[in-house]
Amino acid sequence: MEKISHVIVNPINSLNLLSQSEIDKFTHSDGELFALFRHCALAILNTDSEKDDAAQLIADYSDFDIRLIPQPRGLRLELFNAPPQSFVDGKMIRGIQEHLFSALRDIVYTDFKITSAQPQPSSSAQNTNTVFRILRNARTVNPGGPPKMVVCWGGHSIPREEYDYAKQVGYALGLRGLDIATGCGIGAMKGPMKGAAVGHAKQQIKDGRYIGISEPGIIASESPNAIVNELVIMPDIEKRLEAFVRLAHTIIVFPGGVGTVEEILYLLSILMDPDNNEAIPLVFAGPESCREYFMELDRFLGASLGEGVKHHYRIIVGEPNEVGRVVKEATGEVHARRSEAQQAYSFNWELQIPLNLQEPFIPTHERMAALDLRRDVPKHKLASNLRCAFSGLVAGNVKAFGIEQVRTRGPYRLSGDADLMSSTDRLLQILVRDGRMKLGEDASDYQPCYQLAD
Amino acid sequence: MEKISHVIVNPINSLNLLSQSEIDKFTHSDGELFALFRHCALAILNTDSEKDDAAQLIADYSDFDIRLIPQPRGLRLELFNAPPQSFVDGKMIRGIQEHLFSALRDIVYTDFKITSAQPQPSSSAQNTNTVFRILRNARTVNPGGPPKMVVCWGGHSIPREEYDYAKQVGYALGLRGLDIATGCGIGAMKGPMKGAAVGHAKQQIKDGRYIGISEPGIIASESPNAIVNELVIMPDIEKRLEAFVRLAHTIIVFPGGVGTVEEILYLLSILMDPDNNEAIPLVFAGPESCREYFMELDRFLGASLGEGVKHHYRIIVGEPNEVGRVVKEATGEVHARRSEAQQAYSFNWELQIPLNLQEPFIPTHERMAALDLRRDVPKHKLASNLRCAFSGLVAGNVKAFGIEQVRTRGPYRLSGDADLMSSTDRLLQILVRDGRMKLGEDASDYQPCYQLAD
Amino acid sequence: MEKISHVIVNPINSLNLLSQSEIDKFTHSDGELFALFRHCALAILNTDSEKDDAAQLIADYSDFDIRLIPQPRGLRLELFNAPPQSFVDGKMIRGIQEHLFSALRDIVYTDFKITSAQPQPSSSAQNTNTVFRILRNARTVNPGGPPKMVVCWGGHSIPREEYDYAKQVGYALGLRGLDIATGCGIGAMKGPMKGAAVGHAKQQIKDGRYIGISEPGIIASESPNAIVNELVIMPDIEKRLEAFVRLAHTIIVFPGGVGTVEEILYLLSILMDPDNNEAIPLVFAGPESCREYFMELDRFLGASLGEGVKHHYRIIVGEPNEVGRVVKEATGEVHARRSEAQQAYSFNWELQIPLNLQEPFIPTHERMAALDLRRDVPKHKLASNLRCAFSGLVAGNVKAFGIEQVRTRGPYRLSGDADLMSSTDRLLQILVRDGRMKLGEDASDYQPCYQLAD
Amino acid sequence: MEKISHVIVNPINSLNLLSQSEIDKFTHSDGELFALFRHCALAILNTDSEKDDAAQLIADYSDFDIRLIPQPRGLRLELFNAPPQSFVDGKMIRGIQEHLFSALRDIVYTDFKITSAQPQPSSSAQNTNTVFRILRNARTVNPGGPPKMVVCWGGHSIPREEYDYAKQVGYALGLRGLDIATGCGIGAMKGPMKGAAVGHAKQQIKDGRYIGISEPGIIASESPNAIVNELVIMPDIEKRLEAFVRLAHTIIVFPGGVGTVEEILYLLSILMDPDNNEAIPLVFAGPESCREYFMELDRFLGASLGEGVKHHYRIIVGEPNEVGRVVKEATGEVHARRSEAQQAYSFNWELQIPLNLQEPFIPTHERMAALDLRRDVPKHKLASNLRCAFSGLVAGNVKAFGIEQVRTRGPYRLSGDADLMSSTDRLLQILVRDGRMKLGEDASDYQPCYQLAD
Repeated sequence: MEKISHVIVNPINSLNLLSQSEIDKFTHSDGELFALFRHCALAILNTDSEKDDAAQLIADYSDFDIRLIPQPRGLRLELFNAPPQSFVDGKMIRGIQEHLFSALRDIVYTDFKITSAQPQPSSSAQNTNTVFRILRNARTVNPGGPPKMVVCWGGHSIPREEYDYAKQVGYALGLRGLDIATGCGIGAMKGPMKGAAVGHAKQQIKDGRYIGISEPGIIASESPNAIVNELVIMPDIEKRLEAFVRLAHTIIVFPGGVGTVEEILYLLSILMDPDNNEAIPLVFAGPESCREYFMELDRFLGASLGEGVKHHYRIIVGEPNEVGRVVKEATGEVHARRSEAQQAYSFNWELQIPLNLQEPFIPTHERMAALDLRRDVPKHKLASNLRCAFSGLVAGNVKAFGIEQVRTRGPYRLSGDADLMSSTDRLLQILVRDGRMKLGEDASDYQPCYQLAD
Repeated sequence: MEKISHVIVNPINSLNLLSQSEIDKFTHSDGELFALFRHCALAILNTDSEKDDAAQLIADYSDFDIRLIPQPRGLRLELFNAPPQSFVDGKMIRGIQEHLFSALRDIVYTDFKITSAQPQPSSSAQNTNTVFRILRNARTVNPGGPPKMVVCWGGHSIPREEYDYAKQVGYALGLRGLDIATGCGIGAMKGPMKGAAVGHAKQQIKDGRYIGISEPGIIASESPNAIVNELVIMPDIEKRLEAFVRLAHTIIVFPGGVGTVEEILYLLSILMDPDNNEAIPLVFAGPESCREYFMELDRFLGASLGEGVKHHYRIIVGEPNEVGRVVKEATGEVHARRSEAQQAYSFNWELQIPLNLQEPFIPTHERMAALDLRRDVPKHKLASNLRCAFSGLVAGNVKAFGIEQVRTRGPYRLSGDADLMSSTDRLLQILVRDGRMKLGEDASDYQPCYQLAD
Repeated sequence: MEKISHVIVNPINSLNLLSQSEIDKFTHSDGELFALFRHCALAILNTDSEKDDAAQLIADYSDFDIRLIPQPRGLRLELFNAPPQSFVDGKMIRGIQEHLFSALRDIVYTDFKITSAQPQPSSSAQNTNTVFRILRNARTVNPGGPPKMVVCWGGHSIPREEYDYAKQVGYALGLRGLDIATGCGIGAMKGPMKGAAVGHAKQQIKDGRYIGISEPGIIASESPNAIVNELVIMPDIEKRLEAFVRLAHTIIVFPGGVGTVEEILYLLSILMDPDNNEAIPLVFAGPESCREYFMELDRFLGASLGEGVKHHYRIIVGEPNEVGRVVKEATGEVHARRSEAQQAYSFNWELQIPLNLQEPFIPTHERMAALDLRRDVPKHKLASNLRCAFSGLVAGNVKAFGIEQVRTRGPYRLSGDADLMSSTDRLLQILVRDGRMKLGEDASDYQPCYQLAD
Repeated sequence: MEKISHVIVNPINSLNLLSQSEIDKFTHSDGELFALFRHCALAILNTDSEKDDAAQLIADYSDFDIRLIPQPRGLRLELFNAPPQSFVDGKMIRGIQEHLFSALRDIVYTDFKITSAQPQPSSSAQNTNTVFRILRNARTVNPGGPPKMVVCWGGHSIPREEYDYAKQVGYALGLRGLDIATGCGIGAMKGPMKGAAVGHAKQQIKDGRYIGISEPGIIASESPNAIVNELVIMPDIEKRLEAFVRLAHTIIVFPGGVGTVEEILYLLSILMDPDNNEAIPLVFAGPESCREYFMELDRFLGASLGEGVKHHYRIIVGEPNEVGRVVKEATGEVHARRSEAQQAYSFNWELQIPLNLQEPFIPTHERMAALDLRRDVPKHKLASNLRCAFSGLVAGNVKAFGIEQVRTRGPYRLSGDADLMSSTDRLLQILVRDGRMKLGEDASDYQPCYQLAD
């Protein structure tokens, strides 16, 4: 395996100076912080990789190492045995170099300014404040321009056809001067950025923003693509989701797998919350080949959350230019509304995100059993509970923790309406059929891993 | 046919103010100048068109019109019945808007400052001076940075495979911080720019240059693509070629048709001139599928100009990244050499281009007969003569003027070595076979339209 | 006398590349062009000098020399025996360096593009076109921002009190975001710029403009001050005046000597022209100590040109901040008017300037006798004639040419109204008394050097 | 008294967005934080005031008020009854506007990120870290350019002659591309900035830095001058001094009063510390009229700290250009040394500043008696102790607290060498004689307020 055995990476202005105590703590800590940085750095250097097997990456580069060398104008990095694709003729690609220092910035900031100072348990407002402060420190929120941030979600491992479609949508967005934020890997996270870059070029826009938001648990399987010109590492998956939602002026969801469905339920739980009359425009978009996918999704959402849910999103199949037009118009309305109400453009403070959406859901039998999945639960609560149930059922089929739970303690017992669960089953079956959810090697079919409680 | 019936285009700072006498002359002239601008403007608005049928374009938009309206901050344009693809939601794409004003700038400048002042006939030095002054006025030559301009030639109507290859080469060049100049249409003229734009984005280069150089006779069939961020309209085909050669720090030739072969002979005539020891690095590059094409080209050049010609170029098949590496290295050597010799980076004054290469060749029987095509002619002369002969033979097969000449006066009579002509025939046959030269409707085969003089 | 014996000055980007033919013509000409440049360069290097004795300067630096060395990125200058005040620790002050290249730019441009191409005699429109083209080439007119150019006139050799006042006015202008153009020497030409620079600094304005407009005949006695960040060398005194008038959005005249009075008459001749309803706001301003000066000036203008002349200017004594307020307001009105009328902001094309104001007046007896100085001459004509007469009377007293004329041919004979001439006499006497006009060594009093014709 | 009764001040990009919790805490706190901001804001608006009577200012503007209004793009301020000199035609001067938001930034940051989180008592390293973090948050330390920061100290209430001299030195520094940091009031704190601004203008330097560092206790009597383009409010006088010392690449001390002498002793205590072999170049400079002042100072320092102290500074009388040359050279040496040693340019981490120099000295009899003022104390300690003694003696003569201490408890009792104290007396007498230390109204002479302990 080709590796860059040794290379020095010069400091970049975008990283502000670290204080001596920060450097000391970082380099002489028990190593946890540094290990986190090394992990993220390796993932970043693995840019544009088509593989999403994090374990393999870590194994392949077990001899990868990194050292920090203070310099008059900042901090120099020394790398050993780095993946070669971040280099051109032995010199690191500038975009990747900036990502490295962004990761360093976020990890240091999060640990020193936030984690160490924060009382536990944290309130919803505190969590939001943390999200804000990390983004502000990364200069991702700033009081600059008008609303034009389009958040794009969707699968990272998608067929060529869907990738091309995402690129066409990105092009239509870029031509309209809109910026892009995604989860920063490949697939639906790269396509819109790449398209937007061409659109921006044609409009002679030099300051187009391609924001990638990642977190340590996912970065290794979704290496930031090099179009990303602002990389932010949030401390966990929930803060990453909240960052997207508070930065977004419009959200587009491209087709994806079970993760994408969870994100949709997360988002709908927020949008349906009666406290949130401040809607974020939401568009589901995909190529012709995804028509059935969206029909099924639409049916599932209507069946489980009521027909009212359909006011919260719009489905566009094909017609990437039309997606651009609709999103531009919706973003313009957000602009008008927020300007009228004197609300910040760059961070949506008004949105209520309850504590349960800010915290991880761990699918033990107890937590699964405690979910209330009946139709008469308020819709936004039901969306949130469904998201947890959905997450648990996926885990029971494909994740080590969930499979083990089910093996030792039997199927999850859920309490709720039977038809609600059956429409969930149906959606999962379709995801499996379409290859959007990968079962273990010896399983060929999705098997429900739950029973309804009496 | 969809048209934008009426739109106002605001002035752009890159167009400097016109004086009153310039505006007057432009708008109240007998109309020739204005007709030229209208023609170029229509071609520019037809951006990204896949069609290269200029006559069709002109017919389709016979009702296209344009008006100039002076404004406090410059000049506003009013358009009627414009092609729709230059607009997004009714607003002109900024890149296209700049192209319009560039065309205006060059047409006004060329006519007012140069054509009207220049004595006839012009000397070689005067022609070069004209090329320089138009480029300087367009700010395309400026004393700014180090040598990094890569000129790319090749066909505009090429298969997907070759387009993708050109894009990959462009990407490899962009990653290395090199800029691109091409003839500014689609195909091999768009691919390298599009690839370089992505490469530049990854390197966070914001001032990448994508120079398109066109001329009125060709712009309608090769509409500038919107990636072009510096458009220059030279007054004729020979000055356009000279502009390329004097701006280039390295030249890449992708596969193309007969026009590309003519350009290669033009360039080799310059490079083989004993007065020019100041070589421009030259690379022929194409995907695997073009291996035979280059073999034939190489054979033709060797057979006609002697094996020594092969010192002047390098052929790379496949390996786009290797092309990037080689070109970067060659450009670095040009940098070193010109720095050492205290020569301008942005315009190659040293190169001798004789008058016959600066003037059009019209394939009458007299001029064809006058070409000396014998092996003992000095090689750079022979290359120049071959270019003319080649051009005449193509005309005799596919251009109205040439076909008519041959129909009324019989085959051209050429004086020269027989094997030299037969290797030319062979190349032409291959170009026809590969679809790189399109014969008339009723002809299925290339037919030599000449006889060797005794 | 301290001199910098040898120094190399590097090229500056603001000078665009010269073509080979331009460099050749410039360096190998019969030397006239080069001598002109050497003369201007010496004057520029003599920056901030308190002395205005051009002859002395030229004598002191008879060994000053300059050489041009072409470079990859432009043109390098080699200087010998240069005045030291343009250097700090052996390195040329950047502002001065830019002035040198500006002079080179203007001299080359004027000669190559204009003088050599222009038919003689020139029309009024051609002269205006020449002024425009030189300014455009210097990028002094450009389609950029809103009207905010304040032209300041007045003496360069003035008492401290008046200099401080000019600085205070400049400060008040700078605080209001206005730019300054002056004749670019010291005194009333430096004060407003220096004040404006501080005002701009407080307003955090980084792109404040300090335009100095000179011409070869005057530059040696009025070396550009180093605050000037745009220097333009016009070919003669009349084009310099026209440049001021066409760039100005408001004009302030500070107290000065006979030259200033001539400029006022020039300007009033334009403003009173019935063809020019497009007024330029005009303010006479000075410190308390100048109250009488302005009273006399006001009386002279009223007495000679009628009370109506007073509508064309406003006198403010003291109150520098009030001058700033009034000028800002007047400039705002110019903005509104020109925007409404769709007229260019950066160059006043509408103003009519007749040929006689564009050409030098040489005070021979014939031309003096031909001036019609009667009250019933149209006022704008009378202003123009008075300007010539005034210029002649000054020459007859203090300039070599005029003194010689009077010595050999007797007093000038003027035809006109007696009281008109006596108010002119009176003004001249006051200028002499106040030290604003310096008589020869052996003369202690102003002596009228004319007789009224019968 | 003229006041601006009501005005809205728009947000400025340099203030990053505040989080909701920051705004809440700031506006709804018990008012302490807000009162601090109101105090600083009033001082800032009082810009360029010649008066340094803080109490008078506060009394005059007892009705001054300020309100914060959150906005889509930041924070708007609403002011009531503000001093008029910060406004031009009713609009706030941009520089002042930035100062207001800088004060807000520093007060919020210091309170939220530092004071509330910091354990007490703090260590020396913690104090240094606090200084760094406030400066970093203000973007005053950043990894940008080479060392060129010249810190200027000296009196704010000085004669015209000394002010002009400081301006000339500033001009010489600006011409050499050096930046300025001062205490940000008038006098020796404004002169160097104003001079440097002109020097920078001549060198066409657009990003010259004029850093003003203040603290709440002093800002009202030393309102920031409007040339300051980076204002930092440190939380107390000791952190302000430390900020100067760690930012400085060279320090110039102009003549001043007792405060200036204290600062000199503070600085020498650091420079003479055997732990600090990393010297900061130090120049004492003043006009001819200050020759005696510096002679006396030099004598005092030699007499009290030994002749070795003279290696740490250089005295230049007159010759402002020579000061510029010397400082430029010294700064170049600092550059070389720090580059060689790989030390940060923008913050001097290496310098040891002991805790006693980081904490305020309150002149009670106990603390005065505890000072060891004998010759055999290590010199850097002695300098520090002398600084305290000096500060106490000044307080005993002119400050409310000190006078009261002496009135109720008798003269301070100092233990140390008699001649050391008598040379201190002598210096104080000269300061009084020269009007550099103002005694109370009924006292005409300096009276020593101490006795030597046996």
